[in-house]
Amino acid sequence: MTEKHHHIASAFDRDLEEVQAEIMKMGGLVENAILAAADSLEARDEEMAEKVRENDRAIDELEELINDEAARIIALRAPTAIDLRLVLSVLKISANLERIGDYAKNMAKRTGILVQMAPIEGATVSLKRMARDVQLMLKDALDAYIQRDAALAMDVIHRDRDVDQLYNALFREFLTFMMEDPRNITPCMHLHFIAKNTERMGDHVTAVAEQVVYLVTGEVPDEDRKKRDVTSTDASLSED
Amino acid sequence: MTEKHHHIASAFDRDLEEVQAEIMKMGGLVENAILAAADSLEARDEEMAEKVRENDRAIDELEELINDEAARIIALRAPTAIDLRLVLSVLKISANLERIGDYAKNMAKRTGILVQMAPIEGATVSLKRMARDVQLMLKDALDAYIQRDAALAMDVIHRDRDVDQLYNALFREFLTFMMEDPRNITPCMHLHFIAKNTERMGDHVTAVAEQVVYLVTGEVPDEDRKKRDVTSTDASLSED
Repeated sequence: MTEKHHHIASAFDRDLEEVQAEIMKMGGLVENAILAAADSLEARDEEMAEKVRENDRAIDELEELINDEAARIIALRAPTAIDLRLVLSVLKISANLERIGDYAKNMAKRTGILVQMAPIEGATVSLKRMARDVQLMLKDALDAYIQRDAALAMDVIHRDRDVDQLYNALFREFLTFMMEDPRNITPCMHLHFIAKNTERMGDHVTAVAEQVVYLVTGEVPDEDRKKRDVTSTDASLSED
Repeated sequence: MTEKHHHIASAFDRDLEEVQAEIMKMGGLVENAILAAADSLEARDEEMAEKVRENDRAIDELEELINDEAARIIALRAPTAIDLRLVLSVLKISANLERIGDYAKNMAKRTGILVQMAPIEGATVSLKRMARDVQLMLKDALDAYIQRDAALAMDVIHRDRDVDQLYNALFREFLTFMMEDPRNITPCMHLHFIAKNTERMGDHVTAVAEQVVYLVTGEVPDEDRKKRDVTSTDASLSED
């Protein structure tokens, strides 16, 4: 990889590759956390959920390590222009990964509550599909980052719309369940939290992909897609 | 202020003061957005809510300006140690302010929907109290930042618990309303979103205060307070 660059300072390249490797490691842990959180919810497996909660610590520690490393690189190498942009992107990407990890942990927490309630038909299957989509988006965003592949990053950004649509469909489904039977209200509130947090994970993956586009092209992708949550503007929901 | 510092490079001090002034300006806009969003919800004032949504653009633009300025300072002045920490904190604080602004905008969006539904007794008053608490926390966090006052920042961090408690009380209240009458479900879902987002604003204010503590003391405050949302662990909610 170093050969392709045109820097004078190859020490900078080595530092950068090292911290990028930490990003990939952190990304792998977060991908696992997303899937394991959704699996434990579907399987109603309290033990697996507990593991997701425990593993979040390793993700947080990696973020701190990456922050320290990035600050060290800036202080030591005084990078400018594109090199500085590369180091600053490391900070942004790790912050987004940390938030996604937090949401996975929160999902796992709610599994502990939901196992004590009657299951809501079909909900955890839909939630797992959403989580799976987000995990695949994250995988591609990280691949796009390492390969500096703006096209793949744009693809990830577009796929976030599908996640938003899944969320909006679930929101409506939960409302229906709650109206049908008041006993569904408490579990549906928790399931809705999980859906909303998964949708937010998608937003954070999108932010990672946007960083990649910015790194490669120097341009921030179109702001269009930023209407994250149509339930707040959707007229159909105002028909009380 | 410059006199108190012991830097050689006073150009750095001037740059830093300038970007800190932008932070304060951004913070002022965000404080206004929080209050105006809560006021428009309470007054059911669609026009005021529209203004909050429009004003969010100025907040986003300030964040971009601050990001560019911070990158320029790093590239130009190559700060190290505490100076670097100061510049990096600018990036983190502006990112938190931008998120708080987004939540205020989201609150204003939901006002547009809620005015079309029957009001839920007492809810908007409680929400306004929560928003007011968060706005005062933000004001103090920004004062603590400018005055490098770790004690005031710690006070802000502790006050976030009150906001969490207000949120948890509201969560229960909304559940009760929903169970009493299915017609309350849709408005309560929106009101609950607003409560949750206000609670998240408090988390972002806390993150700003933590940056201040870190800047002044070199230590990250205790992780204890990070259990942000007890509804995901609270046994009382599992009694379906």
